[in-house]
Amino acid sequence: MPKQNERKVVLGLGISLDGYIARRDGSVDFLFMPKDYSMAPFFKTIDTAIMGRKTYEIAKSMGSGGGYGGKMVSYVMSRTLPPGEREGMIFTQESPPSLVFRLREKKQGKDIWMMGGGELAREFLRADLIDELYLGVVPVLLGEGLPLFPSGFPQRDFTLLENKTYSRGLIALKYERIRSKSKKK
Amino acid sequence: MPKQNERKVVLGLGISLDGYIARRDGSVDFLFMPKDYSMAPFFKTIDTAIMGRKTYEIAKSMGSGGGYGGKMVSYVMSRTLPPGEREGMIFTQESPPSLVFRLREKKQGKDIWMMGGGELAREFLRADLIDELYLGVVPVLLGEGLPLFPSGFPQRDFTLLENKTYSRGLIALKYERIRSKSKKK
Repeated sequence: MPKQNERKVVLGLGISLDGYIARRDGSVDFLFMPKDYSMAPFFKTIDTAIMGRKTYEIAKSMGSGGGYGGKMVSYVMSRTLPPGEREGMIFTQESPPSLVFRLREKKQGKDIWMMGGGELAREFLRADLIDELYLGVVPVLLGEGLPLFPSGFPQRDFTLLENKTYSRGLIALKYERIRSKSKKK
Repeated sequence: MPKQNERKVVLGLGISLDGYIARRDGSVDFLFMPKDYSMAPFFKTIDTAIMGRKTYEIAKSMGSGGGYGGKMVSYVMSRTLPPGEREGMIFTQESPPSLVFRLREKKQGKDIWMMGGGELAREFLRADLIDELYLGVVPVLLGEGLPLFPSGFPQRDFTLLENKTYSRGLIALKYERIRSKSKKK
């Protein structure tokens, strides 16, 4: 749980209206970026990305290796791949709480982007490591695919920070985790 | 597919941010109705409700039988329960396309509310009978429950008609089915 001014972990992804981050084969052709929308403000708030092994492999098979630009530090969490730095990424076998704790110790850093996939998101939600959600919802029901929120974690309450509508029906939602046990207003 | 001025089928439900209409036991305690939100405008547009057998049984066990008020005609779709009128409802063993076709023949009617559950919604989506979505999304991840959109239907494209934010972080989304095969703008 981040203290004030501590680095937040933001689960940020584009999803279909039925909650899929990708089709079964990993393709994300249904996602789109409207002209009036930009990820630049989001990217300004983060300097570190964390992804699961499957997300890394799908990204790699699609030719988008090497992390997300020079300033972003990218972690791949995998229990099977050897740890260490290569391909512009840092591979680690740490647990999510351990990695997040270590990243938060560097107090100077910006926020941390948890970029998927769903299985890693579930591990983060189980450990209650997600401080914000930043979701772009596209107006399509895929009917099947890889879910952002596969079942199997305890209830997590949030408060809505932002709800914006962009062209072509994209909506961008920002939520903040509420950890107090008091009743919502 | 409804022609102009034909009665539309609206899938309308409150859901958690991870897409659940209820907890596993059917309870919907996580849903709430903000003071600045009203279902009255929606209810004005419909005069018929359709629900699945499980939704009917959960509603009954929670003591809300007898349909949804005097003016609403409520159908329960079940292959196992005997057809006929009782408890203020009409039980039918028809297929979704057959029931919707029959309801649309009554051209004077208002729109038709498909009120769940997820398994019946999937049947409707398979048969491409859903013309509009009207979703109230509450700011909580349940982690498990009964999904509104269980997997197993073909991709269905929509266009966003409305996105409104209410107090306590409820967002109300209205989508319309796009059936043309032309590319989205």
